[in-house]
Amino acid sequence: MVEPYYQNKKVAVTGGLGFIGSNLSIELVRLGAKVTVIDPMIPLYGGNLYNVESIKNKVDIHYDDIRDKRAMEMLVKDQDVIFHIGNQTSHIDSMTDPFLDVDINCRGNLVFLEACRKENPEVKIVYAGSRAQYGCVESTPVDEEAPIRPIDIYGVNKHAGELYHRVYHKVYGLRTTALRLTNTYGPRHQMKHSRYGIQNWIIRLALDDEKIPIYGDGLQLRDYNYVDDVIDAFLRVGCKQNTDGETYNLGGGQPISFREMVEKVVKIADSGKIVFAPWPDERKHIEVGNYIADYQKIKKTVGWSPRVGFEEGLEKTIRFYRKYKKYYW
Amino acid sequence: MVEPYYQNKKVAVTGGLGFIGSNLSIELVRLGAKVTVIDPMIPLYGGNLYNVESIKNKVDIHYDDIRDKRAMEMLVKDQDVIFHIGNQTSHIDSMTDPFLDVDINCRGNLVFLEACRKENPEVKIVYAGSRAQYGCVESTPVDEEAPIRPIDIYGVNKHAGELYHRVYHKVYGLRTTALRLTNTYGPRHQMKHSRYGIQNWIIRLALDDEKIPIYGDGLQLRDYNYVDDVIDAFLRVGCKQNTDGETYNLGGGQPISFREMVEKVVKIADSGKIVFAPWPDERKHIEVGNYIADYQKIKKTVGWSPRVGFEEGLEKTIRFYRKYKKYYW
Repeated sequence: MVEPYYQNKKVAVTGGLGFIGSNLSIELVRLGAKVTVIDPMIPLYGGNLYNVESIKNKVDIHYDDIRDKRAMEMLVKDQDVIFHIGNQTSHIDSMTDPFLDVDINCRGNLVFLEACRKENPEVKIVYAGSRAQYGCVESTPVDEEAPIRPIDIYGVNKHAGELYHRVYHKVYGLRTTALRLTNTYGPRHQMKHSRYGIQNWIIRLALDDEKIPIYGDGLQLRDYNYVDDVIDAFLRVGCKQNTDGETYNLGGGQPISFREMVEKVVKIADSGKIVFAPWPDERKHIEVGNYIADYQKIKKTVGWSPRVGFEEGLEKTIRFYRKYKKYYW
Repeated sequence: MVEPYYQNKKVAVTGGLGFIGSNLSIELVRLGAKVTVIDPMIPLYGGNLYNVESIKNKVDIHYDDIRDKRAMEMLVKDQDVIFHIGNQTSHIDSMTDPFLDVDINCRGNLVFLEACRKENPEVKIVYAGSRAQYGCVESTPVDEEAPIRPIDIYGVNKHAGELYHRVYHKVYGLRTTALRLTNTYGPRHQMKHSRYGIQNWIIRLALDDEKIPIYGDGLQLRDYNYVDDVIDAFLRVGCKQNTDGETYNLGGGQPISFREMVEKVVKIADSGKIVFAPWPDERKHIEVGNYIADYQKIKKTVGWSPRVGFEEGLEKTIRFYRKYKKYYW
């Protein structure tokens, strides 16, 4: 269903130079879409020009921030679909600087939605939410009706962002869909620091043959999605009208302990040394314990399931960073 | 339990010149508390100096905004309890100017919480939330576990505000409690425009012997709290440690249709003319239908129930505005 839909469609991707946005933009170009990549390249955020090296002559790149009203009004015009992925994404940064998080993830999302309402009320919008919206969960697997009890400012504001999209759907009829992503890993991630995407950071430590800390017993369960599966979910909901106004979990299916994840990385990379350590304060407070998503809703609606197994995904990821290390380290 | 607790306690009230804040400040003075009233007196918001006329020499008044970091850091110091009521409170304004709403009700609440965390981490904080957090409800009565599906930006941001308080409790141990208020009416409300507190606006129209519009059939059910009952709830949760980190609904108990509410106002005021009219667009989209709160949780925890019947409350309210009309019209 995805194949013919995006042919010649005008599609914008906010955060399009970042991890998920760039992988999505590359796939959109392959599908024949006319792609506008929007990314303000905030230092140490996810944006990396090398991410779009293979499509750089086939996309329009705009270095604009979702908080820029004029730029958003110009860029959302005439788009058929907008994948809205550009947000602040660090849990830890949201606690050390909650004001920046609220400025991007609350005010910025409203600037973006107001621009769509005024300039392109027919556009389809897919918003990237997060498992962080749930916070500490009482039981797994977690479906979309589970209580929303975030334990960091990032989780609160990502949820506010989702609710803004829902309000603009209910009140103004904007065609918004929200995905709540679980841990996502793969090529084109920010690899310079550990503040987001911990599993990608562990891949870096392993490739550098460094010590890899496991905090506590490392038995907390998580599920992981390889980025290509996440891209597939965005594309599937983006082309279906019956997803308007809805929210869907993504999930990896297979529960994997943190420790097992690290062990697999070390094994596949054939380097890195596991060390056990107590929880650092800044991470202890925002650690949520077990999280496994129930993704039956998106499976039923658009037939999505993750297809890339964890070891296969790790192998692809490690191969990518070995090859292109100089652009990411 | 409330009587001795507040004697000589240092208590601050944000939004303390507004409707709920001023009624609460008056009661706190009566209970022997040392009261700091904080209110920026934003034009056309709830603040009215006449509200605290009877206690003006017994309280410290500061015209500061919760968005003012320095002022908040100074004012939250040394307080035993802070009743945090000062927020933007218009549903309609939140849709016409979502940026102001996010600035006060998201960023402002974070400025306030950061000040408490830095300068007074032991303080007890009671946050005023709203039934608007629930949005359109699927069934009534609505308990605290019901889905949060606000249908206006005000509802989203009031919920973000509650979740920020919860995060600061979980992560930093701040002693925060949230109340979700239902429709509240009574003396000392803003009476100059209809943008908040519709039932108080209807009292004004009746006292002015004006036409009172009922949109649609007026059969949507609501519950109403007389302001003294709401004050009682704030005071009860404010003095109990077992309310830390918790959220409680307030509710009126008795379901009353909008039409019945208007009819009672007209009868008790003995003036005003009911007219039926179609829903105006700006209100239609943010109208939530029936709403009746389940308030068993606060009843069980601190023994709170509403004590003032609707007709008794209306009589008191109408008597107040007849007498002090010149300060409110």
